Formats: sequence, C-alpha cells, structure tokens
Amino acid sequence: MSKKASESVLSEAQLDAINAYWRAANYLSVGQIYLQDNPLLRAPLQAEHVKKRLLGHWGTTPGLNFVYVHLNRLIRERDLNMIYVTGPGHGGPALVANTWLEGTYSERYPDVAEDEDGMRRLFRQFSYPGGISSHVAAEVPGSINEGGELGYSLSHAFGAAFDNPDLIVTCVVGDGEAETGALATAWHSNKFLNPVHDGAVLPILHLNGFKIAGPTVLARIPEDELLALFRGYGYEPYLVEGSEPGPMHQRMAGVLDEVVERIQAIQKDARTNGYSTRPHWPMIILRSPKGWTGPKVVAGAPSEGSFHSHQVPFGNVAGSSENRTLLQDWLKSYRAEELFDQQGKLIPELAALAPRGERRMSDNPHANGGMLMRDLRLPDFRDYMLDLPQPGALRAEATDVQGRLIRDVLKLNAKTGNFRIFSPDETLSNRWRAVFEVTDRCSTAEIAEADEHVAVDGRVMEVLSEHQCQGWLEGYLLTGRHGFFSCYEAFIHIIDSMFNQYAKWLKKSNEVPWRRPIASLNYLLTSHVWRQDHNGFSHQDPGFLDHVTSKTADLTRIYLPPDANTLLSVTDHCLRSRNLVNVIVAGKQPEWQWLDRDAAIKHCTAGLGIWGWASNDRDREPDVVIGCAGDVPTVEALAAVMLLRELAPQLRVRVVNVVDLMTLQPPSAHPHGISDKDFDLIFTHDKPVVFAFHGYPALIHRLIYRRNNHANWHVHGYKEQGTTTTPFDMVVMNELDRFHLSAAVLDTIPNPDSSVAYARQVLRDKLLEHRHYIRAHGEDMPEIRDWQWH
Amino acid sequence: MSKKASESVLSEAQLDAINAYWRAANYLSVGQIYLQDNPLLRAPLQAEHVKKRLLGHWGTTPGLNFVYVHLNRLIRERDLNMIYVTGPGHGGPALVANTWLEGTYSERYPDVAEDEDGMRRLFRQFSYPGGISSHVAAEVPGSINEGGELGYSLSHAFGAAFDNPDLIVTCVVGDGEAETGALATAWHSNKFLNPVHDGAVLPILHLNGFKIAGPTVLARIPEDELLALFRGYGYEPYLVEGSEPGPMHQRMAGVLDEVVERIQAIQKDARTNGYSTRPHWPMIILRSPKGWTGPKVVAGAPSEGSFHSHQVPFGNVAGSSENRTLLQDWLKSYRAEELFDQQGKLIPELAALAPRGERRMSDNPHANGGMLMRDLRLPDFRDYMLDLPQPGALRAEATDVQGRLIRDVLKLNAKTGNFRIFSPDETLSNRWRAVFEVTDRCSTAEIAEADEHVAVDGRVMEVLSEHQCQGWLEGYLLTGRHGFFSCYEAFIHIIDSMFNQYAKWLKKSNEVPWRRPIASLNYLLTSHVWRQDHNGFSHQDPGFLDHVTSKTADLTRIYLPPDANTLLSVTDHCLRSRNLVNVIVAGKQPEWQWLDRDAAIKHCTAGLGIWGWASNDRDREPDVVIGCAGDVPTVEALAAVMLLRELAPQLRVRVVNVVDLMTLQPPSAHPHGISDKDFDLIFTHDKPVVFAFHGYPALIHRLIYRRNNHANWHVHGYKEQGTTTTPFDMVVMNELDRFHLSAAVLDTIPNPDSSVAYARQVLRDKLLEHRHYIRAHGEDMPEIRDWQWH
Repeated sequence: MSKKASESVLSEAQLDAINAYWRAANYLSVGQIYLQDNPLLRAPLQAEHVKKRLLGHWGTTPGLNFVYVHLNRLIRERDLNMIYVTGPGHGGPALVANTWLEGTYSERYPDVAEDEDGMRRLFRQFSYPGGISSHVAAEVPGSINEGGELGYSLSHAFGAAFDNPDLIVTCVVGDGEAETGALATAWHSNKFLNPVHDGAVLPILHLNGFKIAGPTVLARIPEDELLALFRGYGYEPYLVEGSEPGPMHQRMAGVLDEVVERIQAIQKDARTNGYSTRPHWPMIILRSPKGWTGPKVVAGAPSEGSFHSHQVPFGNVAGSSENRTLLQDWLKSYRAEELFDQQGKLIPELAALAPRGERRMSDNPHANGGMLMRDLRLPDFRDYMLDLPQPGALRAEATDVQGRLIRDVLKLNAKTGNFRIFSPDETLSNRWRAVFEVTDRCSTAEIAEADEHVAVDGRVMEVLSEHQCQGWLEGYLLTGRHGFFSCYEAFIHIIDSMFNQYAKWLKKSNEVPWRRPIASLNYLLTSHVWRQDHNGFSHQDPGFLDHVTSKTADLTRIYLPPDANTLLSVTDHCLRSRNLVNVIVAGKQPEWQWLDRDAAIKHCTAGLGIWGWASNDRDREPDVVIGCAGDVPTVEALAAVMLLRELAPQLRVRVVNVVDLMTLQPPSAHPHGISDKDFDLIFTHDKPVVFAFHGYPALIHRLIYRRNNHANWHVHGYKEQGTTTTPFDMVVMNELDRFHLSAAVLDTIPNPDSSVAYARQVLRDKLLEHRHYIRAHGEDMPEIRDWQWH
Repeated sequence: MSKKASESVLSEAQLDAINAYWRAANYLSVGQIYLQDNPLLRAPLQAEHVKKRLLGHWGTTPGLNFVYVHLNRLIRERDLNMIYVTGPGHGGPALVANTWLEGTYSERYPDVAEDEDGMRRLFRQFSYPGGISSHVAAEVPGSINEGGELGYSLSHAFGAAFDNPDLIVTCVVGDGEAETGALATAWHSNKFLNPVHDGAVLPILHLNGFKIAGPTVLARIPEDELLALFRGYGYEPYLVEGSEPGPMHQRMAGVLDEVVERIQAIQKDARTNGYSTRPHWPMIILRSPKGWTGPKVVAGAPSEGSFHSHQVPFGNVAGSSENRTLLQDWLKSYRAEELFDQQGKLIPELAALAPRGERRMSDNPHANGGMLMRDLRLPDFRDYMLDLPQPGALRAEATDVQGRLIRDVLKLNAKTGNFRIFSPDETLSNRWRAVFEVTDRCSTAEIAEADEHVAVDGRVMEVLSEHQCQGWLEGYLLTGRHGFFSCYEAFIHIIDSMFNQYAKWLKKSNEVPWRRPIASLNYLLTSHVWRQDHNGFSHQDPGFLDHVTSKTADLTRIYLPPDANTLLSVTDHCLRSRNLVNVIVAGKQPEWQWLDRDAAIKHCTAGLGIWGWASNDRDREPDVVIGCAGDVPTVEALAAVMLLRELAPQLRVRVVNVVDLMTLQPPSAHPHGISDKDFDLIFTHDKPVVFAFHGYPALIHRLIYRRNNHANWHVHGYKEQGTTTTPFDMVVMNELDRFHLSAAVLDTIPNPDSSVAYARQVLRDKLLEHRHYIRAHGEDMPEIRDWQWH
C-alpha cells in the first residue's frame, strides 16, 4: 500500500460529513425496503407503516452507498466526468437513494420530491405493485446496466469508456458476479483500451463474502492469490479492507485519490508522448461486511457480515413488535434527524457534498446516451451496389460488398470516433476484409511481427468472447455511439440471454420519457447454417431467429436479404434506425445476385414482394406460390422454378421473396406486418405456398398462424440435419434443395397426370445423380450457370 | 523452473522414438487434410491424389499431437488412468491420427484398418461428404468434448474428475478458447476439487499466439503477468516454450514427470492425512508455434508460427504443380517410410510407445461413460408423496417436497459417489433445503465461520456460473455418473448454446454404435416467470422451453408438473431415463395440490389427461375445454372453473391438464406425441379450447399445428409483460388469470344471451376489485380457500 493511502486524507469535518451522507443513503435504503409510511419516524413505528411484502436486497447496498459518496467527493474536488456502473444491481435501493439525495430523482420524477412526502413515495414505490423494480434498471437515472442477470457490468463499463477520453467509468463488480464467465473474461478488456483516445475504467471488486446463501470464490482465496490474479489480469490492485467506518473512509479516500492520480498520469503520459506500452491501470479491491451497518444479530443468528443479510435481514415486521423495535432501532442508528431538515430534505451542508448538475453521476449525459448521440455520417449505399444486367448475371460475396460500405462508415466517422465493429475474431473470415484498408484490429497488448492489421488504435474489436463483443457494444450504444456485431450464426446463441436482457432494457427505457433514443444494436449473422458444411453439425444452427421472435415485437427486426444489393439497402436502414435490435442474416460465400439498384431498394422498402421476372403467372392467378427467405433458399427456390419450367411448363408459378421476415406477421403482432389484404394479394387466399426458409420451418408457421390459408403452406427449412459435407448436400439433407422444392410444388397439383409422375421421376434421378457425384468427387456438381427468365 | 525439468529425462533413443511417433501423427494429420489417395506417397503426388475441397485446421494440430505422444509415455511408464480433453477441438486430425496409431480407431471402425488401405480411408473420410467431422466429435474414440463451440473443455475436464479418484484428466486449453467467458471462469474449478476423493485435472494452456486471423490475449502478455494470472487462479504453472523439437521433447517430458509426481504427492498426502488445505495443482503453459513443422513460408508469407497456418496452409494443390511439390516436400519431411511398414502399419518399435488396452486414452472407458455407469439407487418416490384427501385440500412447496427425494438419492448413493447436484447458488433458494441434512455445498477454498453447510466434501456444486454448472454436469454425465441442475428459469438461457451443443453431441453419439447410453441431463427450472413478481422483469422469461423444442425431438422432454406429487413422479422418471435432456418446470412457492398418489402416477404416465373431478361434462361432450400446463396456470384454470360454475352453471366444461408437453405434438414429430385419435378424444375435434400455458403461447400453437381443430385454440400465456408487483398481478398483466380465462371461455359461447353479458360484467368488476386491492395494500387479496368439486 502506498504512503498516501495510509495517511489520513480527510479532515475530521470531511470525514464526519462523508459519513453522514453515507448514513443518509443507508437510511433511505432501509426505508425503501421496509417502510410505506412514516418515513422520518416522526411517530413510533406501527404495523401500518411497514410494507406487507418485504422485498429487496440489503446485503450489497451499504457498500454501494459507501462507494457512491466517496466518488462524489472525488468528482467534486477534481471536477471529474464520471459514471457509475453497479454490477451488484440487486442493490437498487442504493442507487435510488443516492439519485434522490442529489436531486436528480426528483427532477426526473417530480412527484417523488425532495421532502417528506417525496420520501414517503420513494419508500413506498420500491418493489411495490405499480412502483419500481428492486434492481437497478432503466428507470434509475445514471444507470446503463440492469442488475438482474449478473455478469455484464465490466464489459458495459469498457464499452462506455471506448472513445470517451474524458470519461471515467467506475464499475463495482460483486464477488458473486465475478464468478460468471462473462465477468471473468471481461477483466481482459484492458488489452483493448487505449489511454490516448479512450476514457478510463476504474473497477472496484467488492468482496462481501457471500452470494445468496453460499460463499464466493474470490472472497475465499488468500490475499497473495487475489493480488496475483489481478496483477495477472494486468491491473495494479489496491486493497481497502475493514468494517470500522472511520478508518474505512480514510482508506477509501486515500486510495481513490491515488488511483485517480494514477489514471490521470497514465492518460497525460499517453496523450503527451503517444502510446508506448499497455499501462497497468489501477483497480480497487474493497472488502467490507455484507449488510454493513445493519443489525449484528437477528433471532440469534449473525446478520451483518453473513449471507443472512443478502435480502431482507428480517421479516414479519408488521406482525411482531419485537421486530418492529429491531427495525426502529436500526433506522434510528442512522440519526436521520441530523441529516434531513423539517421538510424532509437533505440538509444543505450534506447536499453540498454532491456534485452539481451534469457532474452528478445520476445526471451525467453519458448514462443517457441518446443525449450525446450524433447521427453517423453515412455514404450513399447505392454507390456500393453491383451492376447487374439481369437477375442471376453474376455471383458475389454479399458480406464482402457490405464490408466496403462498413469500411467507408468507419472512414467517414473516424474523426468523430463514434463507430466501431465487434466480432469474435471473424471480421476477415466474414469477408469484411475491406475494413482493414482503413483501420485495424484493436490491441493494446503486445503486437507481434507476424500480426497483420493489429494496432493500438484499431476500431475492429475482436475477442473470442461473444459475451465481450455484446457487452462492449451495449455499453458503447448506451453511451450514445454506433456499432455492428458480426458473428457466426450458430454461436450467437452464446449471448441469447444477453439479448434477452438488452431487449428488456430497451422495452423499459422506451417507457421512460427522459431516456433519449439510441442507435440500434445491429447483428450480422453470417457463416450461416447452409454454408457450415465444412465445419459440420456443431456450426449449424439458425435458431437465433426463433429466439429473437419470442421477444417484444416492436423492438426486433429480422432481415434476410437474398443478395448483395439488398444487403446494402438493409444495412443502411439498420444504421439509421434507433432503439431497435436488427438481425441481418447473410452469407459470405460467392452467391448468385438477383436485384439491381432500383429493384433492391424497392424490394427492401416493401420488405417482401413478388418477383415478376421469375414468375410466369402474369395477369392471372398462379397455381402455386413459391416463397423464399434467405440467400441460399432463394437460390434453391429459383433453381426449382427453372426445373419446373422444364418439367411442368403449364404450371403457373409465382415467386415471392421475403427480406423483412416480420412482414409475414399480422400488423397487430408486429409494426412491420403487412395487412391481411396485401398478404392475400401476394400469397393468394387459397393457393398452395411452398416456402423455402433459411431457419427452422416452425418459425414461419408461427408467423403466419393467423393468416388466411396458412394451413396450405409447406415450409422447407433446417430440420436439424447436418454434418461435414458439401453445401448442396446440406440443403439436400434438409430437403431444401431445388429437387425437393420442385417435388413439393408438383405435389400440390390436384389430380396429377402421368406427366407429373414422370417429372417427379426426373427429379429423383437428378437428385441421385447429384448425390453420387458428391460422394465420388468430394464436391458439388458444377452448378446451373445461365438463368433464363424469358 | 525446477531442476528436474531442465535435465534431459529422455535418453537419445527415447527422444528419437517419441519424435518419430510425433512425426507419424503429424504425417497422418496432414494426410487427412489433403489426401484422398496415395497415402504413403508410393507414387509421385498427382492432382487426383488430393481432395477437391481442402478443409481442416492444421494450426493447432501438431501441438495436440505433441502432447498426445508425451502423455502416452507418461501413461505407459506410470500405468496412469488418463483421458485427454482437447479444447482446440478444431484439431480433429490430431485426435483421429492418434487413435488410429494406437489401434482403437480400427477396432471401432474396422474398415479403417491399420494398413495402407485403411490409411487411405482414414485420409479420405476426413471432412469429406459422408465422412467424419473436421472437429473432435462424438465419433472420435476417447473424446468427451465437442470442438465446435469453444469454451467448455475445462469444465468438462473437472466434471470428469469429480468422484473419479484414480483418473487424471489432461485438458488442453487453446489460447483462443481461453478468451471465452466460460473458460475464463472454469480455471476456478480447482476450488471445488477435493484430492481425497476426486481425480486430478492437468490443464495445459496451449499458446499458439493466434486465433483465426488475430492475436490471442494470453499469448500477448508478459511472462510475469501470465504466471501471476495462473498463480492467482491457484495453480502452480510450469512453462514449456520453444520451437526446436529436440529440446522441446526433453522439456515436456521433464515437466510432465514433475507435474505427475506433484499430483500424486498431493493425492497421497490428502488420502493419507485427510484434507488439510487447497493444494496448488500444477498446470502447464505450452508455447509452441502455430502450424509447427508445417511449411515455413507459403507464397512469400510466413506460415509456421503465423495465423496463416490456422486452417489449410495452402490450397489449390490439385491445380498447381508448385503447390503439389510444396505439399509433397512437407509430407516427405516426416519420413513416413521410417514410420510405417510395407503394409502401411505403424512399425512395432513405435507402436510399443502407446499404452495398451483400456490404458489408451482413446479406449479409456471413462470417455465412453456408459460403460461405467451404474444405475442410481432410488428410493420409492411414492413415499414422499403428500396425503391429499381431495384436490385443493392443501398447499405445499413442490420443490421442497422434491428436495426430500433428492436428499435421499444423495444419501443412498453417497458411497458410490455417482450423484451430484449443480446450481448457481440457488439450492436453498429453490427449496431443496432438505439436501443439507445429508450433505453440504462443496468448497475447497477457505471456509468461514459464518458459512453454513459448506464443506470440502459437499455434493452440492454451487458456483454463480450457469456455464460451470452445465459444463461440470456434462462432464460428470459423459463419464458415467448422474446429476441434476437446478436453476432460476430466466437465467437458464445463459446456457442456451451449451444446451444446443450437448443436444447435438447426444444426437451424434446415439448414431455411434460403440457409445453406451448415459444418464440424462436433468434440469429443474424453478423460481419461474410467474413467481418472479418480486425480482421484476429481468427475472421473467419462460423461453427456454421454446429453445429446447427447436432441437431434435427424440432427445428432449419437457415436463410441467402441476403439483408436488406429479413433480415427484416426473423426477423419478427423469432420474431413470437415459440419453435425454429432461426439462422440468416447477414452482417453489406454496401452491395448491391436486393429485393424490395414484392419480399423480397415472396422470404422469399418460402425460396428460382429463381431470374428471374438475369437469362437469360427464357422459356428454363438453361445450368448451379448459386446458392447462404448468402449476400457476393450473391454479388459474381451476379457479376459472369455480367462477364459471357460479356465473355460467349451464356451461359444460372439461378440464385437461398437460404434464408432458410433448404429448401435444403428433407422434410423427415426437415419440411422446399422442395419436390424433386420442388427441381428439381428449380435446374434442370441434369444441373451443381455452388453454392456460406456463410459457409463450406461440409454443402451444406450434406444437398443435398439425392437430385437428387447432384454429379453435385460445392460448393464454406469458406475453412479455412484467414488472415488480404481486404474483396475482403478474398473471393479470398477461391475461392468464382466472378472470381473463373465464371471460375467454364465455367468449366461446355462440349466441351469448344477457346472462353471459352479466357474467362478463361480474368478472370485470372482480378483476378491478383485485387490482385496486393490490395497489392499495401492496399485496394480493386473500385467495379462494375452499375448492368445491361436487
């Protein structure tokens, strides 16, 4: 421990004031958990003052309050620009208490004013029907991290710090959360932070010793291991440990002074002399009792310093006068009468401890990122589109074309520094190779001679952790910037639960009037199920679409552009959208191209449409509709059309391509859903539909469940059949290939004659021929090359 | 570095032999990636000898081969019982090569014999249509870890080591995989391993320096940080670093001798003197070039030691004679003529290096766990059932009752030591409190005075990482043991992707004839969506059921027992089942009980059924069917029945409860699906069905999509509406409550008269009364107490 940290940095008056502020926050926290009336205990505590259902988490709360008041001192004294990310988000009472103390809460929610009635409302609303969540959530000013599902605080903190050179993000990591995988790898984020143009993250590992009922790992290893671990992670750890408030305040103040000076020295050096070597950023290990300042003993069992204080230390307060006394004594131990004036407002001497205006962590605009968000400068996506004399005239790698657009988005916004791309080491593999013309992978760790496109100021964030990619990007978006996450389709399931939580956050923050819109979270899912023939079964899973569909409809969009030009149009649209989660699925392999500039834009604007050039039902009703969604299914569907023209030329076939999957839903279920009338105009109200789909067939059935004629749909898609084979064999295994699709169309013909039977036989023969060829040659047969539409 | 490790432990002859064996494995690896014929290069390499599509991962392969041959020496010399878990599972060629060299591959797949023709088949099948995967997968003898989705090797390794005192699990962790969250926290598994009765895990962190195209984090930090990190994780790290084969063999041999002696010393001490303190288990950091022994330079760019060697170092071999020469020279560098005899079989001097029989890592029965699995001793689940004079006679906490059964399973199998339970610190919260009567939470870290039920030999595996719980359990099951994973319902999504991969593994291993059946993976999902009113929106998500349903039907089961007795019956069934994933959803709160012993068993055996006692359609067709699945929906459905008896006594209502969700699917879609005839007998073929469901309504629509009358189903379930409120308000928000259900039933009445309008008004009034009460009192109204069935 350094010299400074062991000195007394606080005067006695300062210490008293800080401790008093802490008492106020603790008082308000206990009040929120227990009381619904009599907030200042002006009357003896009665049963009716206490909530019927006692819900909340006390254990972590005093520690969060402790950190808060100390950060306030730091911000005020040094005029810091700081936000506070709290991993132990169950400690909602702490954050709500502090935002109320510094006035922000009442500014956002005027009925919860800074007076006794406001305090009563503050208490009553907490974990109460129609009130607020017991966790830190979107409703809480200053928050960018939901405290429900643990693991993401540190990734969010780093995401917030990237490209925010003046910002310090203090991030409390609970010792429970520290056991999660996402958090355990997030410590390595320091290898991606550049002190020249990024802000700083100050992690505080808060060791309370216990989770819900059991011990925590990091609280139960010897100090030398603990310090070694964080040195190994590349930090300079500072220990603050104890339970006596006085000495703890001194220690915390001293350590905080020192770590901020260390942070500023690192930044000054890097910004003056340029980046030289990865700094050892400071971090703090705060070891304090769980349920600190709460009752020592409840019903004969230890409470403070034990897992028994994790949630509500004792219940049955309305029914037990003994427990009421216990609660009253506990509340009185904070001496509220010294902290709040007659009106119930924090006394001015203490209020003066909090920073002012936007320096308050609860009012910092970075934590309401939409306030700071600047629109991206976007190139004209039409400029990247392929020239296409006719549908099927050439093949191209769609994501390669998209990569050129992304490159120029990076270039145009390089100065603003508000756009980054994220990927688990797949940027190149996913064919966004063009981006390396203008930037690099980011790494502030050692760069070796054999590395290519790796630099300390790269804007391509690659780490083999989908959790980190997602967490960083969320933090980046929530603080008002823009980004894209490109991922192998199968492995995006790794962040299913993070997606859930983010969607929930968005839903709630849309209901909070003061939260400003932020950029959408954009996914490119590529290396998708149909082209993972070489990696095999483990890499084949289109189920993220199902997962996304189950979430709140007005937040989620799914796009399946069939070719490069439509992918460009969709990408532009997603980059301009706000407050959504956009999922784009597109292949990276050379594939046939269908739509020219105008057609692509028109098609994407509609979201779906009849492809007249591929249909032969002009001016009449078709006999059958062939639908398709997804690039590979579109190729197979169109190849089936070619086969049918040859084998069943009398059949009137209409081809419909769907790029915006949600158009299939009724408008009551999704804002993009087309009307039933339009749906019938496109798909007919009574003709069979053979639909070739990128994902699991059940998803299409689900989307069209309430449409007319839905029972007449025959959906082909992924049936969980896969292995290491060829691309064409993959579609065959799942009966999504041109032969099976054509056969399915023939099966819809009522009263088939012998020509149909003959056509079916031809299809069977062709399929067999293909499969034999594949087995014999280890590759697919040379493909159809000339698409003849007229 | 210790003295021993720096000495030359191998004689020159030993070193030559080990190096020759390694050359053989490398030769076979390159052959698999490139060749389809001419396996021993008896003829000059021609285009037709080379595969058309070159697919595979070379980069990690030579390192895996290097470790393999050294482990062979160790096993042979010390008669070790060892299995080999390879995190860099893309290195499939290495594992396949080694299993072929030691004969196991040909024993399992006789057509791939130990001769030239077998070698040709070995080469050709790799990453070839109809052949084998390019990753380590279920088809590979000796494997318990799929190499597709990275992150789980170390958790699998520890899961395998628990309760296997004689087993050493060597686990190679790639530096790519090491960046994942799951792996980053898995290092802490050593705080849960007890040397007295568990085996050992020997982790080898393999630093190759690169992922697909970018650098890896752990390869780019200074050595002092690297060592500090692993000391911080609690290990004693040994470094083996270099690129010259000779010295590397000596170093690796010396270090392996030392670490095995260290492991054995730790075990001997603990087993002689009892457990004293958590040992610092050894681990190895192996730093070797990516693509080691491959071509140094390809087309002017570095290959060995660079990310360019990650997959196939160079392509276009069939088409380029230059590349053919490069490949031929590379293959010839291994001097196959010295390694294989005229028949193509490994020469006896080298074959002698491999262990014999089941000591071969590829033949070790622990890696084919079904060989060792012993059935659990199970108590009679009927003994735990609640006495129930009539439906609704009492309330009980279902998972508490289940916990007593689990307690006795733990007790009865304590000696065998083949059953553990896994949870992210929720065993107590989920009401399995009874288990702590017979065992404890497991921790070999420091145990504090305030801890309760924590012990070094506890069988309750709690860590706040769903990834670890899942990974440990998978490893435990795959090595022939049994277990249960209890989890908050919302957060099981954290392991969505692990579930996917495990289901894929099971599907493939069911197709492998020599893989013996293993115990099923059992989930208890509790603290479920309907009783997360206190934790709020972030804790409310029933979507895992949708996720599971999208996977291969014959492997997955979903049970929604409505009460304690049915939960017991289902639990017993799951513990006896094999090769499945069983998902049980059951609440932990006091809830009404419906079925007595006999009725519960009968109901669970059928999977669904008409509850005659709740229905009033005896001897006639009903007017409407009320269906329900899940405990809370069942209460609401039955309460709706009560309301309807009062408000619409003339209405004939049939009540159907579904406990085995998959019975709803047609038998063609799921083995548990009931016949269409039975379905119609139960649900009628034309009457409206109002269905109260635990999860998202879309799932029910999906399951019954092909049933008669499906358009006449009105499903109520979770609509993504939630907040912090009361339990009853939660069902109201989602229109799953008794009032909405009753109203939905009334809505099905054709030509409703004024009495129906009146009934609807009564329902509206009652609902309003409830909501007002909740807002005013902060809790639900006192509930219906007397269920009158006659």
